[in-house]
Amino acid sequence: MSEHTVNLPDEMVGELHAVLGHEHVCTSPAELDRYSRCTIPWQSYCAGVIFPASADEVSQVVKIATRHKIPLWMFSSGRNWGYGTTLATESGGLVMILQRMNRILEVNEELAYAVIEPGVTYEQLNAHLKQEKYGLWADCIDGTSQGSVIGNALDRGVGETPYGDHFGNLCGMEVVLPDGEIIHTGGALSGSKTWHVHKWGVGPYLEGLFSQSNLGIVTRSGIWLMPRPEAYNSYVFELREEKHLSQVLDAFRRLALQGVVTTKLHMINDFVSLSILTQRIHEDVSHDERLSASELAGLRKKYGVSAWSCGGGIYGTREQVRLQRRLLRKALSSYGRLIFLSDRGLVFIKRLISWSWKHAALKSVVEKLSGTSLLVLDSAPHLHNILQGIPTDYFVKHAYFRNRRSRPDQDIDPARDRCGLIWFAPILPYTTQEILPYLDASRQNFENYGFDFYVAMLLLNPRAVICLMGIIYDKDDVDEAAKAEQLYDELLSDMRVKQYQQYRAGLPAWERIFEAAPEILSLNNKIKSALDPDNILAPGRYGIDGQS
Amino acid sequence: MSEHTVNLPDEMVGELHAVLGHEHVCTSPAELDRYSRCTIPWQSYCAGVIFPASADEVSQVVKIATRHKIPLWMFSSGRNWGYGTTLATESGGLVMILQRMNRILEVNEELAYAVIEPGVTYEQLNAHLKQEKYGLWADCIDGTSQGSVIGNALDRGVGETPYGDHFGNLCGMEVVLPDGEIIHTGGALSGSKTWHVHKWGVGPYLEGLFSQSNLGIVTRSGIWLMPRPEAYNSYVFELREEKHLSQVLDAFRRLALQGVVTTKLHMINDFVSLSILTQRIHEDVSHDERLSASELAGLRKKYGVSAWSCGGGIYGTREQVRLQRRLLRKALSSYGRLIFLSDRGLVFIKRLISWSWKHAALKSVVEKLSGTSLLVLDSAPHLHNILQGIPTDYFVKHAYFRNRRSRPDQDIDPARDRCGLIWFAPILPYTTQEILPYLDASRQNFENYGFDFYVAMLLLNPRAVICLMGIIYDKDDVDEAAKAEQLYDELLSDMRVKQYQQYRAGLPAWERIFEAAPEILSLNNKIKSALDPDNILAPGRYGIDGQS
Repeated sequence: MSEHTVNLPDEMVGELHAVLGHEHVCTSPAELDRYSRCTIPWQSYCAGVIFPASADEVSQVVKIATRHKIPLWMFSSGRNWGYGTTLATESGGLVMILQRMNRILEVNEELAYAVIEPGVTYEQLNAHLKQEKYGLWADCIDGTSQGSVIGNALDRGVGETPYGDHFGNLCGMEVVLPDGEIIHTGGALSGSKTWHVHKWGVGPYLEGLFSQSNLGIVTRSGIWLMPRPEAYNSYVFELREEKHLSQVLDAFRRLALQGVVTTKLHMINDFVSLSILTQRIHEDVSHDERLSASELAGLRKKYGVSAWSCGGGIYGTREQVRLQRRLLRKALSSYGRLIFLSDRGLVFIKRLISWSWKHAALKSVVEKLSGTSLLVLDSAPHLHNILQGIPTDYFVKHAYFRNRRSRPDQDIDPARDRCGLIWFAPILPYTTQEILPYLDASRQNFENYGFDFYVAMLLLNPRAVICLMGIIYDKDDVDEAAKAEQLYDELLSDMRVKQYQQYRAGLPAWERIFEAAPEILSLNNKIKSALDPDNILAPGRYGIDGQS
Repeated sequence: MSEHTVNLPDEMVGELHAVLGHEHVCTSPAELDRYSRCTIPWQSYCAGVIFPASADEVSQVVKIATRHKIPLWMFSSGRNWGYGTTLATESGGLVMILQRMNRILEVNEELAYAVIEPGVTYEQLNAHLKQEKYGLWADCIDGTSQGSVIGNALDRGVGETPYGDHFGNLCGMEVVLPDGEIIHTGGALSGSKTWHVHKWGVGPYLEGLFSQSNLGIVTRSGIWLMPRPEAYNSYVFELREEKHLSQVLDAFRRLALQGVVTTKLHMINDFVSLSILTQRIHEDVSHDERLSASELAGLRKKYGVSAWSCGGGIYGTREQVRLQRRLLRKALSSYGRLIFLSDRGLVFIKRLISWSWKHAALKSVVEKLSGTSLLVLDSAPHLHNILQGIPTDYFVKHAYFRNRRSRPDQDIDPARDRCGLIWFAPILPYTTQEILPYLDASRQNFENYGFDFYVAMLLLNPRAVICLMGIIYDKDDVDEAAKAEQLYDELLSDMRVKQYQQYRAGLPAWERIFEAAPEILSLNNKIKSALDPDNILAPGRYGIDGQS
């Protein structure tokens, strides 16, 4: 199906105008084009884009879509680059973006939660907490600051702080069901004082049904926040020798099981670091293949980047933070460099970095003493920020690594800028026996298809690790895009053979997602049929389409 | 419907015999009577009791029950005293008890989880971990040691340690659906290495559907275990003056939000303590009313019981435990007595108690110095045990408080012994503005109906508290049983007006459970109808019966 061949029925457009107002119903080619872009090699075109302002409007839209049998694809803010942004499985659907529903309805400082709508972004929520001087932190992602807090949580995204299990920290949702009915999960429409404090509610726990699914539209939710601790340190650990990766992974697992490591540690490889710091065009890489081992080694040296590094945070009273620092040192110091940064240290570092950029002599002294580049030091304040929930677009820059145009300094938007990026995010049991061979095999797959091996290991919980791989490709190169697709398929097949699964899956994976578990697909489809007999809500999202 | 008026169809019994063997199908009056007993004022009679040995047998039984349209009520071990044990909403059903499925299928020490069947009891799991010298602890309840680990978790029971959110620590279930199909939630029948380490799985999170419900039968599950810490202390806090309850509750909330208090703290009132220590018959209470204020004060003095007390645990490295001790002292010492007990201290205390029971002089010195009774000191080792997951029947003795027969020393079984006990367990937001007036109103309700006010506040999470109330009544007294029912109804109504809900509900509450949220009941029933169109599995459990 090609561009703009499907239009919404005129009658339907009229009904949407009546409910939402003309300005919130978009059907012009330029607007449709804007919401048909993504960094993944997939193309579908929507027939309309709407922006409702309330749960009632959402409910009316659902009924209209059902009447006209037009698929309705709901997105909170639609910045899910690398997974699918606002694309649908097929062209012709109505895309609904909830960004106008961006009210922060409540902040309860005593009980440390907020109630927000799906249009609320990380930047907005964090700014609000700071502005109103609440002693609370909201977790964020290392992706875009304009991402939706609820949208990411419903897709079960993973953040940074001890509150980084985003779905796990949602509590009490308002949901519009496929028949347009509105419910309060874990609570009651008639009012419930425990709606946002008691996660499981009474009777079956239902909130799980509305994550990674198409069974309802979440129009508000409670989210648990982290009380601002008395003391906080961020830290960076840089592995000295790759042969010790195994010991370090074991150490971190033990620390996580003991509750010393409570953050969603991201252990990144050299290529991840480099893709944030630079771009191929700036490195004058003349060929189109992946970076060779010697090129990679050269860049590592040039920027002072370690083969593996990770950052985390420790929180508590001053004494608790000191103690955690000791426990981390004891466990890790023999394997590499461990640097702690306090709020006070941050002020100093920022000043030093700023001076060093201006004074070449100072720069060279600082780089020599720190054993790394000023560019790497630049990242420290960003890391220190996200580990207290202050979002930044700094880390999203990696998506531009293979882009032929220089990436913008601000307003980073990889989808608009035709960056090529596919996320592949399998989960593994957190043992080195599972992880290390899998890293080797995956690296081999990347190399076979000519791609740089991008991998970040995210501590999902003390028992499971996400091996987040990014296929960064040149979207302007048709062949390379095809190879990116092939690599993705290969990774999916390999994952299935090895009996892992994705913690979160992009659009190109949906058709195969329950390949290994048709019985689960069948249960999901039974529920889908019962709630959405016409298969109106995002048909095919996570493979669920009500067919048996 | 009266006793034994309904029999199972002969043909059905024959089919059950064929699948399970004669010895695992019970239809004799004595056996049916045994499984028709509970401590609540409710009576229904089952028509048969069966004991399958595998998921396959369970699956076949489900199909048999569906063919004959006989309701099938599944219980893991059926020791859910005070909520319903093995009773059904109506007589004539087939009760299925999974106690024969008691295999511990796997213990993974590195990743700190076990995989068990629903018949595995707290006692069994803990003994196994000790015996095989795993460095892992399994949480338990302060109820019966013979309770089912999975059964309690599916009913979303609350334990003691940092792993006390029992449902929250289940990961990866095998479930028999109402059509007899077997699924692996969060995994795949074909095998999945992340089945027991990644809680949410991929696609909608479905495990919630099988808790507090009747949508499937869980036949095995992964359960996350706590790595044995380097150091551990239990502690007891006794409030000095009741007027400081508010400050203490605030302090504990802050400590919980900070992660210093990680256990499921039980703050119990004087009557709870007394009901464990003694029985009315032994106190020669001559009247039938509740204890008067002066009788209660006398007993408090006699046994050295505080108006409010609680116990918790702290875990970590030696330094971490020392630091937590300091933080607790700082927050609580001005409001009462805070006593820490280490494993070493425990050995000493146990010896001292044992000697003191034998030597009256020593007893009086110890009681004087400790400012409490030897009976109260007796509880310390039990508390120290359950806070590391070692179960005990010690605390269940409270159920016998109004029983006219002396309670047994061993083999505590309140249902068999005709104890009267109903649990009522509303959740409140964890603020003193909510809790204190509610305690007053509830106490008034108890007094109005002539019952002793039994309340334990359980720290469900840092944002929510369960006010667990026990209506302890004389089951041999028809009038008192009627009054117990009336009080329960009154508490339910009052809870609804105040917009709280139960964290877990007994059989007598099911009909009214979604009174305030018919929209949630309707959603549950839609799902029930889709999965169990004949309404065979436990019809009416948690109010769900597939009717719209």
